[in-house]
Amino acid sequence: MKLLTTAITTALFASASFAFADPLPSWSDTAARERIISFVDSVTDTASDDYVTPADRIAVFDNDGTLWGEQPVYFQLIYAIDAVKAKAAEDPAFLTTDALKAAAEGDIEALAEGGMDALLEVINATHSGLAVEDYQASVSEWLDTAKHPTTGLGYDEMTYQPMVELLSYLRDEDFKTYIVSGGGIHFMRVFAQRAYGIPTEQVIGTYTETSYSVVDGTPVITKEPGIAFVDDKEGKPINIDRVIGKRPIIAGGNSDGDFPMIEWTTAGEGARLGMILHHTDAEREVAYDCDSHIGRLCDGLEKGPDMGWLIIDMAKDWSAVYTAGR
Amino acid sequence: MKLLTTAITTALFASASFAFADPLPSWSDTAARERIISFVDSVTDTASDDYVTPADRIAVFDNDGTLWGEQPVYFQLIYAIDAVKAKAAEDPAFLTTDALKAAAEGDIEALAEGGMDALLEVINATHSGLAVEDYQASVSEWLDTAKHPTTGLGYDEMTYQPMVELLSYLRDEDFKTYIVSGGGIHFMRVFAQRAYGIPTEQVIGTYTETSYSVVDGTPVITKEPGIAFVDDKEGKPINIDRVIGKRPIIAGGNSDGDFPMIEWTTAGEGARLGMILHHTDAEREVAYDCDSHIGRLCDGLEKGPDMGWLIIDMAKDWSAVYTAGR
Repeated sequence: MKLLTTAITTALFASASFAFADPLPSWSDTAARERIISFVDSVTDTASDDYVTPADRIAVFDNDGTLWGEQPVYFQLIYAIDAVKAKAAEDPAFLTTDALKAAAEGDIEALAEGGMDALLEVINATHSGLAVEDYQASVSEWLDTAKHPTTGLGYDEMTYQPMVELLSYLRDEDFKTYIVSGGGIHFMRVFAQRAYGIPTEQVIGTYTETSYSVVDGTPVITKEPGIAFVDDKEGKPINIDRVIGKRPIIAGGNSDGDFPMIEWTTAGEGARLGMILHHTDAEREVAYDCDSHIGRLCDGLEKGPDMGWLIIDMAKDWSAVYTAGR
Repeated sequence: MKLLTTAITTALFASASFAFADPLPSWSDTAARERIISFVDSVTDTASDDYVTPADRIAVFDNDGTLWGEQPVYFQLIYAIDAVKAKAAEDPAFLTTDALKAAAEGDIEALAEGGMDALLEVINATHSGLAVEDYQASVSEWLDTAKHPTTGLGYDEMTYQPMVELLSYLRDEDFKTYIVSGGGIHFMRVFAQRAYGIPTEQVIGTYTETSYSVVDGTPVITKEPGIAFVDDKEGKPINIDRVIGKRPIIAGGNSDGDFPMIEWTTAGEGARLGMILHHTDAEREVAYDCDSHIGRLCDGLEKGPDMGWLIIDMAKDWSAVYTAGR
């Protein structure tokens, strides 16, 4: 009889803990967590005035600095620099310009001094002239081996555990989760499904020119020099309109490049949630905002709160940072 | 007892007819129908060598001439001409160019003589300078009242019943169905959900420039003059790569503008289905192919069969044409 009672109790307990499983275990018990959950409750409860039909539950998130790290420079730029180094090791004649030489030496300061032109040279040299599949195989190989200069982690271990939980929680509540990022679509799609559970068709971002041609009877899509669309600032709402065709009800970012996307989202009728991740955690990550050369955040901090946006304080609101477990 | 027997028989019969309901009732019992069903069976059967996981079950379809009619001219152009007429009725000074005057007179031949420049003038005059929402409200109002010049049907009654059934059948089999069309995204999204069950985020097409601005405190996305991307010919696979990021396993079209999309789709590894709708039905619709000024189809008819594409013969393979019931 005792055995039976234990079995029943265990079963009940297991079922109860399942029903009340915490959807956001890496979020501290603060107002930020409470606000997110109460927003989701309100738009998914058919009895609520704020109820939103599943087809309109669109949530968009920036990637760099919002879903994974972005310091000391965007990880995609580190990929490009590593790709220049690899090409130069094979053939030193590849280093035809000062920008490529700076990249090969890992001299990010010199590269930064060259401005956008220097950066474009490095991007063109590593992101064009090859089939999309071949580019993505190269990114995949890099992700398997490359380590971040200060954490020593693989780059895809530097995704943020609380955000991965948030994405999963939203999908469980019938949201469609999208990335809307200044990063390149072909780059992000290599890991978005595995790292975030986001399929390629929900990855929106910057893209290079591409061409379609039939080579020896085989159709191929080739990445070409030049950037066809920059998915940053006003480009974000413009691209969301182009690709999704609906105004999201949740938008999250971490820099002023995300301002128009969050502004457009939260200006819509009905319940909306805008959120800004404020990098306040010098101990576990990097503390930066208005003065940062990457992920600069001034307007969002200044105007966001008055517009009702949730400012997430990484140090205070997150009990864990990286999916790597630190 | 007899009553009970009848009730049981009725229940059994109802359940049986449900289980074996024909997914494509408006397709004649021909090889085309059989080929489509056997393809879908093969990619959805986990025991089949051709099995495809649901995440990769992407099906793309052209719109004009594939999902709805396109004669005597694209319906979106008829909308533009009607919009010019409406504007001219309000203010005759609106007709500043020969192209606009021709449009206001419904003189399609004169418009055609003006070539692409004339067409762009009409498109710019009716598809720019207003918020996306206002443009779409105007299209919606037009769809509610406008009638096709020869059939007298509303334009959204001229969707093809067999294709609507095919889209629904594919979704029941866990396909994601997309439109990939030379038509405008903002135009098509007004009716795609209602007419085809396709949500805005699965409508890919041509798009005008747009801008993002904040007007009197309200963010607005405005359609601007100029076409930013033409989703036709090579543009179709390029845009599928940009927006979906996966190669489809089914592609359907009706003109040579769809050739590269079908070519790219069917060149992929594993089971693929390319299909061309051949407008052979002068009695119920319009018979046209290689000599048509709209929806010209030469290459597809000539090379498609050798590439294994299914050529759908409207007269032979369809038992019904329009969703309007004719």
